[in-house]
Amino acid sequence: MNKKAFQDYYPTDFGQCYGCGPFNDHGMKIKSFWTEDEEESYCYFTPKPYHTAVPGIVYGGLIASIIDCHATATAAAAGYRAEGRGMDTDPPLRYVTASLHVNYLKPTPIDTKLKLIGKVKEIKGRKIIITITLSANEEICARGEVVTVQMPDSMITKNK
Amino acid sequence: MNKKAFQDYYPTDFGQCYGCGPFNDHGMKIKSFWTEDEEESYCYFTPKPYHTAVPGIVYGGLIASIIDCHATATAAAAGYRAEGRGMDTDPPLRYVTASLHVNYLKPTPIDTKLKLIGKVKEIKGRKIIITITLSANEEICARGEVVTVQMPDSMITKNK
Repeated sequence: MNKKAFQDYYPTDFGQCYGCGPFNDHGMKIKSFWTEDEEESYCYFTPKPYHTAVPGIVYGGLIASIIDCHATATAAAAGYRAEGRGMDTDPPLRYVTASLHVNYLKPTPIDTKLKLIGKVKEIKGRKIIITITLSANEEICARGEVVTVQMPDSMITKNK
Repeated sequence: MNKKAFQDYYPTDFGQCYGCGPFNDHGMKIKSFWTEDEEESYCYFTPKPYHTAVPGIVYGGLIASIIDCHATATAAAAGYRAEGRGMDTDPPLRYVTASLHVNYLKPTPIDTKLKLIGKVKEIKGRKIIITITLSANEEICARGEVVTVQMPDSMITKNK
């Protein structure tokens, strides 16, 4: 499967994010996609052995980071979709996080691939709210809700 | 000033956190302290050049990570203080994050030292709530609220 991830459409300067930028060589480069029916977005991430909280368990900051990045990517994809156009069309749309909320439900094991599922909860003007579940071995370990806001055109133009 | 940070009192296996563990060689090793009057806790962190969201700006996941780690460290220190004993006494107390909320107020510049200030908002049974401000160049860029819960003794004993 060679379909492009949401992040692969980011203009170059927006591809520098440590969490999800394709051009950040130090970063985690997460990749987000729609499911077949576009009801949900998904993303996988396998933690490094040193992303520990205590041995065997993923530290909370990593969980918050990938929830945040998957949510802003999903917001971008949802923004284009709401305008009825592809992510390769102009003008570019990018969303920044206004608030991030994460509930840690159980310890997240470090030795397995994590799966994130995103859903669009609300689109209202320039604001898009995304909910996320993070699972390991089919068990939900954390839930997130991310309020994103469309980046001002001036900031996008400056960074394009 | 050679005073020990809260994290320097963590038992060895709790010193493995990517965000604040003194023994995680890949990690960020943040260090948290009380202010002179112990009204607040503080911590400094200088982002790496690659901790970008867009060029010049810190990515949100890093902000969430250091808010989370500074809050759980502050909770540990507050827990010992509430029991009237030092952080070098047994039994060890550690706090895990139940929920993390971050409001991003303005873009956080990457080329300066960030300052985090923590306050104990509530101590109730095994739960401690910490509020955090994150500032750059004397301006508050993000606010966090972290609900922490005391780790079960069984988990601490296992990992000590």
